[in-house]
Amino acid sequence: MGLLERLTSPAELHRLSLTELKNLAGEIRELILTTVAKNGGHLAPSLGTVELTLALYSVFDFSIDKIVWDVGHQAYTHKILTGRKDIFHTLRTFKGISGFPRRSESNFDSFGVGHASTSISAALGLLAAEELQNKFGRVVAVIGDGALTGGESFEALNHAGQLKKNLIVVLNDNEMSIAKNVGALSEYLSEVRLNPQYRKAKKDFEDFVKGLPLSETILNAAHSVRYGVKSAIVPGTIFEALGFTYIGPIDGHNIRAMQDIFSRARELDEPVLIHVHTTKGKGYAPAEKSPEKFHGVGKFDKETGEVIKKNSPPTYTEIFSQAILDLAEKNKKIVAITAAMPSGTGLKEFSKKFPERFFDVGIAEEHAVTLAAGMAAGGLRPIVAIYSTFLQRAYDQILHDVCLQNLPVIFCLDRAGLVGEDGATHHGIFDIAFLRTIPNINILAPKDENELRQMLFAAAEIKKPVAIRYPRGAGLNIAVDEEPKNLSWGKSEVVLKSDGVSLSKKFIKPEGTNISIFAVGSMVQNSVEAANFLREKKIFANVINAKFIKPLDREILIKESRSKKLLVTVEEGTLSGGYGSAIAEFFADENISVLMLRLGIKDEFIEHGARSELLEMCGLTAKKIADKIVATLEFEDDVKIYKKSRG
Amino acid sequence: MGLLERLTSPAELHRLSLTELKNLAGEIRELILTTVAKNGGHLAPSLGTVELTLALYSVFDFSIDKIVWDVGHQAYTHKILTGRKDIFHTLRTFKGISGFPRRSESNFDSFGVGHASTSISAALGLLAAEELQNKFGRVVAVIGDGALTGGESFEALNHAGQLKKNLIVVLNDNEMSIAKNVGALSEYLSEVRLNPQYRKAKKDFEDFVKGLPLSETILNAAHSVRYGVKSAIVPGTIFEALGFTYIGPIDGHNIRAMQDIFSRARELDEPVLIHVHTTKGKGYAPAEKSPEKFHGVGKFDKETGEVIKKNSPPTYTEIFSQAILDLAEKNKKIVAITAAMPSGTGLKEFSKKFPERFFDVGIAEEHAVTLAAGMAAGGLRPIVAIYSTFLQRAYDQILHDVCLQNLPVIFCLDRAGLVGEDGATHHGIFDIAFLRTIPNINILAPKDENELRQMLFAAAEIKKPVAIRYPRGAGLNIAVDEEPKNLSWGKSEVVLKSDGVSLSKKFIKPEGTNISIFAVGSMVQNSVEAANFLREKKIFANVINAKFIKPLDREILIKESRSKKLLVTVEEGTLSGGYGSAIAEFFADENISVLMLRLGIKDEFIEHGARSELLEMCGLTAKKIADKIVATLEFEDDVKIYKKSRG
Repeated sequence: MGLLERLTSPAELHRLSLTELKNLAGEIRELILTTVAKNGGHLAPSLGTVELTLALYSVFDFSIDKIVWDVGHQAYTHKILTGRKDIFHTLRTFKGISGFPRRSESNFDSFGVGHASTSISAALGLLAAEELQNKFGRVVAVIGDGALTGGESFEALNHAGQLKKNLIVVLNDNEMSIAKNVGALSEYLSEVRLNPQYRKAKKDFEDFVKGLPLSETILNAAHSVRYGVKSAIVPGTIFEALGFTYIGPIDGHNIRAMQDIFSRARELDEPVLIHVHTTKGKGYAPAEKSPEKFHGVGKFDKETGEVIKKNSPPTYTEIFSQAILDLAEKNKKIVAITAAMPSGTGLKEFSKKFPERFFDVGIAEEHAVTLAAGMAAGGLRPIVAIYSTFLQRAYDQILHDVCLQNLPVIFCLDRAGLVGEDGATHHGIFDIAFLRTIPNINILAPKDENELRQMLFAAAEIKKPVAIRYPRGAGLNIAVDEEPKNLSWGKSEVVLKSDGVSLSKKFIKPEGTNISIFAVGSMVQNSVEAANFLREKKIFANVINAKFIKPLDREILIKESRSKKLLVTVEEGTLSGGYGSAIAEFFADENISVLMLRLGIKDEFIEHGARSELLEMCGLTAKKIADKIVATLEFEDDVKIYKKSRG
Repeated sequence: MGLLERLTSPAELHRLSLTELKNLAGEIRELILTTVAKNGGHLAPSLGTVELTLALYSVFDFSIDKIVWDVGHQAYTHKILTGRKDIFHTLRTFKGISGFPRRSESNFDSFGVGHASTSISAALGLLAAEELQNKFGRVVAVIGDGALTGGESFEALNHAGQLKKNLIVVLNDNEMSIAKNVGALSEYLSEVRLNPQYRKAKKDFEDFVKGLPLSETILNAAHSVRYGVKSAIVPGTIFEALGFTYIGPIDGHNIRAMQDIFSRARELDEPVLIHVHTTKGKGYAPAEKSPEKFHGVGKFDKETGEVIKKNSPPTYTEIFSQAILDLAEKNKKIVAITAAMPSGTGLKEFSKKFPERFFDVGIAEEHAVTLAAGMAAGGLRPIVAIYSTFLQRAYDQILHDVCLQNLPVIFCLDRAGLVGEDGATHHGIFDIAFLRTIPNINILAPKDENELRQMLFAAAEIKKPVAIRYPRGAGLNIAVDEEPKNLSWGKSEVVLKSDGVSLSKKFIKPEGTNISIFAVGSMVQNSVEAANFLREKKIFANVINAKFIKPLDREILIKESRSKKLLVTVEEGTLSGGYGSAIAEFFADENISVLMLRLGIKDEFIEHGARSELLEMCGLTAKKIADKIVATLEFEDDVKIYKKSRG
């Protein structure tokens, strides 16, 4: 029976010997590896923090103390140690455990996470709550060097440094966020690690730490070692300037060294930042070699490290990747900005071909957007490639810096809609609703990959702020025009006539119920399929590809509202304020009375699971769309009959 | 004839002698003082930067070079120097010049501003645009020590430090943002200024600078002086760590010293941060003495410094200020958070009475919200008091940290609606629309000051995220209940019955047209007055005080929709996604056919002017509301007659 199997409570970790903890690390690593190979997940970050987590748990009592994991993709060991080892195999699956800490999942998950750079703020809040309620819990925030570049981290450090409370920040420095980390701070941390004088000091310090037992002198020594280094690169001065006591860097795979430091930090009466150096993907050679590939990874072969490729058409990301390359070739004003996601957003090739026109700003969405606004004000045509969920971070910058000045910034929103396994924190289901509140913005959604290219090319010609949203995953395997056709700005398009015959053929009006379905982007194809189901029931649907969410195509809305019994809107986004909402506003303002059915995501947060499972749950598959339309029409008929019967 | 009068182009500043520049500073100061005494405005910030601006303009050529003013409330001298001296008397008035730089106002306004912490990002974007288009303009960002605490500034510094472009950041350090600045960085800057060793070095440096002409040695000297200071408080290490060359602090009222440094900085091939120490309110004794009072000030007597007080009822801010005190007295879990606005948001008294429960986080809205989420997760009941416009900065934190976890954080949104003279960047007209997109949140708006107190007390009892929005300025002079009545959660209230007789009296249905007006917060009183106008035209309106924007009171909506000819919604906020939008959604989803009129702010940005002028322009005065209702009913009748006549 393994150690892990015997473990019933994290409190038991206090009793394990160093050897036992090391063995336990091996078992945990194996469980993580096996599970992620099967389910996909954030492998490299979680492999990097096994020892760190064990060291923390062997020093702190997290039934009283609290821990906040920044982003949370490194918290698998934490999950395994806190009552979830037996259900760890359900990681990221529908109704299984989440890939991120969640308060609803365990009392040990003090604070739910997903987006970067929130941990220090949240931890400071938890600490204030402890103090004001006369409790004694210590609070630890674990944050990566990537997440540290997010401005909110700095805001929190600045505040914590002034409050002088005993907040413990563990900087998990693996020289990476998702890709190679960027920014001056990253260079600074490298210098701290690599500076020869410092390395010597570090060795002295580590030698010293070996001289146990713990005593008052350790930290004094740490101090003197630090101040002994007469160099511009005194480690940690930046944190010291912000009011933190800095300790480090220490080896994040040396459990004993970390235990010593954590034990001391626990007793301090001031904010302390412990700089821990870890290796992303530690213990699994393929991940150590390619940490970016194994940051968030799909199913893979554990033995070879080969990712199990599905035979699928090109993804929207890949189509975007090629389109921006071709566009940039023709238009010298095109520049591209990413917030630490060059691969995820499809900008890797661009960064190689046009290095001087490529800007990776780190995890810093606010800066990314205002930077783009500045570039546009200076005459460039910036394209901000970003996941829908992360653009939430820059609502004010889109409004105040881009749209108020009507600057021609193009936002390419990848992963718009349900993203699947990453779950509630990552679904890109709010973009239509929050962007639509902003004057001057144009919001587009392509029905397929060819239209994505067309829209990107068209956006580059329009001198206005434009957002193009497209879903995660593969397109429809449609041929892509190298020279996209002109896009008629603001116009929606009938993609299926209610007789089911294509537009080029003669239109024969059938007997039955005529309806219109206005579908956004990813939902166009599902709506066409729904129309096919409906035809069998003598319900004949025009399917309209919205293309433009803002501005609305008023003409086609008026036209379709006149002759149809039901007008359906379908969108992979929230119904509160979404596309259907805009149309309801339009009909209300124009005093157009029409029976409407708005399909989309209800006003609630959506859990994790396969995208297909979630679409099913949200009623957005072709079959579910058709069923709902049938039910609505039947209900309407019943109401009419009922009304008639009452005279 | 004064120097200022003769000045026709900022280029002429290059030719002025030091004496002339000093005299010009005096004239400019006088113009600013006279204008702001009359119009109100940001006096203290702009008085502090007169010499700084003159020094910049005498060194740079801002017809080629570019300058971005952070926030922009310190840019009056910049406006006066760039073609706007003759219209400066229209400052902040309707159709006059804006209180902030705006691209539409002058080519010298390279980038529009208003919210804090955007300047370094925008300047870096402008600089990238210069370089990629083979232009030679230098780019300067001027940022206060307050705005520097905003995370976006840090994100931008981190990026700029890595890019190693010759961005020039002028840190305008006046030890204040609006109130006394907070945060560890602020303490750090104080230490830099106050450290005796450093002060000596500074003196040496200044003596040296006096030894003109400029030569290569100056910067070397600056360097050697810096490195000569052997202290933990080596000035600027934090900026050096971020890749900037740090120079300073220098006296921000010594034009010659600044000219020397700026001239050198202009030639550098790396990012440089120049730390300039200025006095807020410089040259006007009352403002130097009370810089917070004179930060943004109304009309005042120039001679005495006495603010001209209008005889007005208590403001919503004052009511909130008392309510939170009383609430905190009874409920020990109440804590209050502000982002650098203790006075503006009414938390000054709270901060004195409950210092340990009061948190001023600096200009750091993101951190403020996640901190509150952490506190709520820890069992406290945090109240985030914030202006509506600044909450835009924390959309993702409200969504991801507060609402996704359904944490009981209370947002008190002051200045919701049109704020008046601060204009487009500051109107709080988006909160309903952007908050409404977020699941789990409750959005409330009081019709008067008594209801504000009632709502705050009720929110503290509900374990859910709550936002309460209320307008700038005075309430209705209504008596305030010390013990607020219970609030029926989610329920709207009929405040005026269509016969104009109060609810307590017998209800007599009159002959004429019956309509319903659903009004939000500040618009309830105007709607009641509108109903009085309408009665003369035999249009009888129920006026409903919405109270709850989210959740909607479905019951009353169904009831009112049944019997009324027209249902009007009135809100001081954007129509795109606002309260009327939510009702249009509801009617669409419930298949309720009703003639609607949505009144509010059109999908565009609104300029500056007196709040009353803007309400008039937006059609939100009682008279305009009534007129629009009459016109809608007449149009509707015409349409019916027309339809009838066509058979």
